[in-house]
Amino acid sequence: MQEPPETTEEIKTEQPDAWEQLEQIVAAGDTEAAHNYLRDLPPGEDARVIAQLSHSEQQEFIGLLDDENAARLMESLPEMQAGQLLSALPPEQAAHIFDEMYSHDQVDLLNQLTEKQSEAILEEMDPVEAKNVRFLSQYDHLSAGGLMITELLAFKESQTVDDVVSDLREHAEQYAEYNVQYIYVVSAEHKLIGVLRLRDLLLAPHKRQISKMMIKNPTSLPASTTLQELEHFFDSHPLFGLPVVDDDHKLVGVVRREDVEKASEEQAGRTFLRFAGIMGGEELRSLPLKIRSARRLSWLSINIVLNIVAASVIAMYEETLESVIALAVFLPIVSDMSGCSGNQAIAVSTRELVLGVIRPGDWFHVFKKEFGLGIVNGISLGILLGGGAYLWKGNGYLGMVVGGALAVNTLMAVCLGAVIPLILKGFKLDPALASGPILTTLTDMCGFFLVLSFAQAVLPRLI
Amino acid sequence: MQEPPETTEEIKTEQPDAWEQLEQIVAAGDTEAAHNYLRDLPPGEDARVIAQLSHSEQQEFIGLLDDENAARLMESLPEMQAGQLLSALPPEQAAHIFDEMYSHDQVDLLNQLTEKQSEAILEEMDPVEAKNVRFLSQYDHLSAGGLMITELLAFKESQTVDDVVSDLREHAEQYAEYNVQYIYVVSAEHKLIGVLRLRDLLLAPHKRQISKMMIKNPTSLPASTTLQELEHFFDSHPLFGLPVVDDDHKLVGVVRREDVEKASEEQAGRTFLRFAGIMGGEELRSLPLKIRSARRLSWLSINIVLNIVAASVIAMYEETLESVIALAVFLPIVSDMSGCSGNQAIAVSTRELVLGVIRPGDWFHVFKKEFGLGIVNGISLGILLGGGAYLWKGNGYLGMVVGGALAVNTLMAVCLGAVIPLILKGFKLDPALASGPILTTLTDMCGFFLVLSFAQAVLPRLI
Repeated sequence: MQEPPETTEEIKTEQPDAWEQLEQIVAAGDTEAAHNYLRDLPPGEDARVIAQLSHSEQQEFIGLLDDENAARLMESLPEMQAGQLLSALPPEQAAHIFDEMYSHDQVDLLNQLTEKQSEAILEEMDPVEAKNVRFLSQYDHLSAGGLMITELLAFKESQTVDDVVSDLREHAEQYAEYNVQYIYVVSAEHKLIGVLRLRDLLLAPHKRQISKMMIKNPTSLPASTTLQELEHFFDSHPLFGLPVVDDDHKLVGVVRREDVEKASEEQAGRTFLRFAGIMGGEELRSLPLKIRSARRLSWLSINIVLNIVAASVIAMYEETLESVIALAVFLPIVSDMSGCSGNQAIAVSTRELVLGVIRPGDWFHVFKKEFGLGIVNGISLGILLGGGAYLWKGNGYLGMVVGGALAVNTLMAVCLGAVIPLILKGFKLDPALASGPILTTLTDMCGFFLVLSFAQAVLPRLI
Repeated sequence: MQEPPETTEEIKTEQPDAWEQLEQIVAAGDTEAAHNYLRDLPPGEDARVIAQLSHSEQQEFIGLLDDENAARLMESLPEMQAGQLLSALPPEQAAHIFDEMYSHDQVDLLNQLTEKQSEAILEEMDPVEAKNVRFLSQYDHLSAGGLMITELLAFKESQTVDDVVSDLREHAEQYAEYNVQYIYVVSAEHKLIGVLRLRDLLLAPHKRQISKMMIKNPTSLPASTTLQELEHFFDSHPLFGLPVVDDDHKLVGVVRREDVEKASEEQAGRTFLRFAGIMGGEELRSLPLKIRSARRLSWLSINIVLNIVAASVIAMYEETLESVIALAVFLPIVSDMSGCSGNQAIAVSTRELVLGVIRPGDWFHVFKKEFGLGIVNGISLGILLGGGAYLWKGNGYLGMVVGGALAVNTLMAVCLGAVIPLILKGFKLDPALASGPILTTLTDMCGFFLVLSFAQAVLPRLI
């Protein structure tokens, strides 16, 4: 039971904010308070309060935790945030924390560090753990090999139910951390030959040899299976995990449904950020300003060059523009609106690619679908803007010029927006990051050209 | 074994594409071929080939499948696609398919339909199934109640290990579909009082009463727990699933880690699409044109009004613009670039909100972080554009006008972009959908104003 507060007012006015409390703990260097603090935080709050500490306070806080608790904290933080914290620690301290992590968190977090940093940590780590990490690092981190865990239970085909149950009993504590669902049966050469569910053991006579009751030739996946293939596989199979085998069909790990779903979620988040021009698909505000600024600028500076190229179309029509200065109002509208329409199409294509509903080869199918929509939306928006222009200046030709330009440009934007991600994907480029700049450059150029060339064609009617 | 092809050439040139084959099956109305086709499709291909069929072909294809297989297909398709297929079927046929689905897929897919459609289907469904769906529908679909499954194993506290094992044996086939991990122990009033892991049963004496070996007062979640809270919970607890209880602490379901991760992934995908102006966060190209066009237009037509408002700033400075027509080239560049910078900040804030690293109340912390970045990036981009303008026209004042305007506007854009999502979230509005239009309207207006008012101030030097 909690002690009653002295006055009710005190609760409201003096209860310190969670992270102010943390700052005090860090300033006092109180190890016990740090552990209690972390234990009592509501789930998910850890990422937020730590993000609000300064860089050096963050390091001091980690220093207060024991390795086990520091490892659990790192596993629960967003990868980038954890990577950033670990990279600031001396390699030896970081190595002890790594030793306490799950195998696949080890690999993910080492991937967040520079090669030099991760080498330094690997050298300080427990040699067995380090060897395992090096083995796992050979796989792409978005493949079955990169997502699998190596903490699994494998028994030889000659063993009996009794052997397995005694082993489970003996290592109960260790296995408690494994989240065991299936027991794998392997040959003398460690090739995967069967699988048993835990509940099959429960119902079986104890003397039975496991090879007699196992499901033979179970489904397994090569380590190179991609994240998308894994997602589809789990979508259509109600399994918790699948054994992963190497080229010789040797059992190397287990890929779990939860890790696949988690990786997909992270992937979707990255797609969103890359689409908005965040290189690498990740940024946290707790990163140093220099890094954040440089990453964003690298994308913006490509964009500004493309923007200048597109706007140079306007410079070619300066005379037309000078005679009908009202057009200057419509240039940004036409280019912005076409950009919006195109971005909608890009987003749908990018998402459909992620979901596996379309593939690069389907571009003509997608183009046809978007062409119809482009006609409808182009005409609708064209009438809206053209009508507005007519009402403003009372000149029907002006309305037709800007409305017509927007209609044509919208049609072009949605068709391009739909197809560009497929083409980029076909060339193994990143559709989320590159589609936007390519699209807006093309639609800006084309939009400016359409407005100004249509205007030039009917110039006497506009003045 | 497959029959060898008559000539090798035939394989290359005449092997029909997967969906052409499907079209033939549909045209022939061949039930057996339809089942075989579906079985032999690589995982995930189903969504893609079905998306390429016409609306009526899709219906015919579903008609060829038995209910069980149709249900499995629906569960593996993206929700929206499955919803669309089901909505086109007669209610009776749809009801039979629904009867074969998992409880929480039933609810998710009924949510994709109109109220009228889902009522019609519920009336045709098995009464027990329908009652369960109605019970689950009361919960928000992104809460523990909405994500939980009701297929679980609960036993009374008085039962023994033997009782449980015999029950497992007796219902082996039924439970095989449950993916059982934990066994829950409930009181006579069905209140949750304990939990057992399957492997604890394996190691226990058979006569023991389960209440003697259960973990007492296990962690449970109220049905109202939000998706974000669930994510954080599973992040920090290595559990497969958690029992969900109602207000009276009665056991109502189990929320599984995999369903939480899957919902997060879908949520992240929707955020991405809403950010790009796709209302509702979902669109598939297989939807009818009318719906797709209307949804996109509803967002675009708000945007075009905002665009016109912003561009009207230009109209107020027509005279200035007429005297220095070169400015017309820079207006779209300044507004576009500020929009890009602001969108980067929006994306990072939206993502940090999803990850739980920030909360609406942290807006001042976020503002400070972004202010520094805005200064650095504003000056960098300002120098780049100002330098370009100077080189083009040889006029240093022109360079200062456009460079200065871009610098100030970039600073404003990143600060606004960082804070707007937090404010919207604070007011329980959708940050992904609304932040972009609000931001670009503000940055466009401000950008046009800055360029043209700076120009007016030094007008004699520009001409």
